[in-house]
Amino acid sequence: MILQRDSDYSDGTVLGSMCTEPHPVAAEAFVAGLHVNLGDPYLFPNAYRAERECIGWLAETLLDHPAPEEAEGSIVSGGTEANILAAYAAREVTGGREIIVPATRHFSFEKAARMLRMKLVEAPLRSDYTVDVDAVQDLISRDTALIVGIVGTTETGSVDDIEALSDVAEDHGVPLHVDAAFGGFTAPFLREEYPLPRFGFDLEAVVSVTVDPHKMGLVPPPAGGIVFRDDEFPKAIEVYAPYLSGGGASQYTITGTRPGAPVLALYANILELGEEGYRRIAFRCYEETLKVAEKARELGLELAVDPPHLNLVNIRLPDRGTAERLLRESEREGWKISVSTKPLGVRIVMMPHLDAETVSRFLELVARVLGG
Amino acid sequence: MILQRDSDYSDGTVLGSMCTEPHPVAAEAFVAGLHVNLGDPYLFPNAYRAERECIGWLAETLLDHPAPEEAEGSIVSGGTEANILAAYAAREVTGGREIIVPATRHFSFEKAARMLRMKLVEAPLRSDYTVDVDAVQDLISRDTALIVGIVGTTETGSVDDIEALSDVAEDHGVPLHVDAAFGGFTAPFLREEYPLPRFGFDLEAVVSVTVDPHKMGLVPPPAGGIVFRDDEFPKAIEVYAPYLSGGGASQYTITGTRPGAPVLALYANILELGEEGYRRIAFRCYEETLKVAEKARELGLELAVDPPHLNLVNIRLPDRGTAERLLRESEREGWKISVSTKPLGVRIVMMPHLDAETVSRFLELVARVLGG
Repeated sequence: MILQRDSDYSDGTVLGSMCTEPHPVAAEAFVAGLHVNLGDPYLFPNAYRAERECIGWLAETLLDHPAPEEAEGSIVSGGTEANILAAYAAREVTGGREIIVPATRHFSFEKAARMLRMKLVEAPLRSDYTVDVDAVQDLISRDTALIVGIVGTTETGSVDDIEALSDVAEDHGVPLHVDAAFGGFTAPFLREEYPLPRFGFDLEAVVSVTVDPHKMGLVPPPAGGIVFRDDEFPKAIEVYAPYLSGGGASQYTITGTRPGAPVLALYANILELGEEGYRRIAFRCYEETLKVAEKARELGLELAVDPPHLNLVNIRLPDRGTAERLLRESEREGWKISVSTKPLGVRIVMMPHLDAETVSRFLELVARVLGG
Repeated sequence: MILQRDSDYSDGTVLGSMCTEPHPVAAEAFVAGLHVNLGDPYLFPNAYRAERECIGWLAETLLDHPAPEEAEGSIVSGGTEANILAAYAAREVTGGREIIVPATRHFSFEKAARMLRMKLVEAPLRSDYTVDVDAVQDLISRDTALIVGIVGTTETGSVDDIEALSDVAEDHGVPLHVDAAFGGFTAPFLREEYPLPRFGFDLEAVVSVTVDPHKMGLVPPPAGGIVFRDDEFPKAIEVYAPYLSGGGASQYTITGTRPGAPVLALYANILELGEEGYRRIAFRCYEETLKVAEKARELGLELAVDPPHLNLVNIRLPDRGTAERLLRESEREGWKISVSTKPLGVRIVMMPHLDAETVSRFLELVARVLGG
């Protein structure tokens, strides 16, 4: 009732969100586990074990961990918590205070730096909106706690050269965190056919990866993911909860009470879709993205990153006035769009609820607004 | 399937959790809103408005806000996030670094202090496990950012004298945060008949209150609540998200993507139960608690706080060996118990899924174990 005028991904009008309709088996598992609290593993040992298995699957299947059983991780409240935990652990382990981030970094790193009293050092970009790795190297100092690389930036979907970043990080003995909140469920498959870098634990410097089940993992929110190479970094931020059922447990997540439903939903998707199902979804979304990119070119629109690295198309807008006109016209026609500021553009995130045909109608609107 | 050997609150064996079965209308609303992301209010304006109404209701009905429309707040991932936000905002507004907490403080304050590079200054307790207010006064320094008082401590359910704390805080110009994660939904009603302090925004020094819908609000997790007196404190920790649908928004929560389902669940409970329904639940749980306390006394067991301040009974255990024997015996009989360390005792949280008759059988086990 109260939702009647709110958005629904299924009608194909939500163009700028990295969330989508959950997979039906995920929704069903979520509902079955509404009461489960992973903050209290003694009460919910099977759900807790399901989480361990999910982390193992992420580490092995998506993140190329050479010894996935050593990976430590949690399904957390979102990519923001995951990135904060990575920064926090790096501060505690290294004693450093600076985080070198691409200028494309998500605002969660700003939250992290402010909360943690750390300093963001922004590295400049190349023309394809990936970080300039030479510049990153020049920014490393004795105070560097962490280097961050991104697999699927929020604004353009660009993928940093994580392999090169890992080499630089390794040379300087600095840990590397990969923010694959968006790309973690697609890049591992797409690189079988398209030029994308490796970004997992087979790269020596990678200590932690953010990968969000509630984005391309088709799990309802809240479901972020943080995977650490082993327990060294999480141990550094662990806090003891003295009173939990059975008599105490340690936690390194920000949250105490922690919903188990998202874990059960991910577990269900892994059983139902598995590697093959997620691969199919990744390719379908990316192929639709390429069609959208092609259509945009036909209409004379300029893509910020061309070809798109992942299933996100960012179409440049010339100025703020045009952006505002486009927002108004889109609202009138029922499109829910998202405008980016760096670069100024309209983001189209080709989630599973969208297809190229639907989005092409929106592109025609963009062309009209830009033409007129 | 995977849950088959996990706990279920409905069988009455979970004695030590502050979570419970959600109310059926809350579960239904939660499920209807599984896809809703409050991190993107442009997409979900009605859910966002529902959250504003929930915060207004909490401020007015539970927290005695003299001008509830000025209250600012959010439904967050849990009491831990709520307490961290309160500490973070106080650090930013005051420039202070110390948080004066009762020795009974939840471990979320340890998480907050470590993350935020603040310092916990623990105030000693009186014999009833409430904080010694004179001691708090003596601990105030120029570096004090925040004083914390607790309405329903985790281990014994004790309620600090928030009115006296507010007087002290006001005298020294220090903000007061109230952690009513557990007691926020019950103390406002129980004090109509039992000696409990006021703890809301009618007390001058109170700047923020944690009150968790996923505890006595009967909402599925994740549903913590943070309510600020007005927008001064949250504004100090706000971060701008440049790309959200419609073109950007500010957030002060830790999380970016934020599930709307818990908000819709709380909204449904407020419509269904309202003040009267929550009052009824509070009294029922507390009356069962008093019966449990009476039964414990009959059996010669000693309560850490007697009479209990809220719906939590802590029965003292003489030593670690007895605690371990009790854990083993409880497990054998199917009880899921929780042992506290300060004081050493067994916590029985009289949530709506428990009644005195069921718990009395457990008390007999405790008496047997303590008897030898």
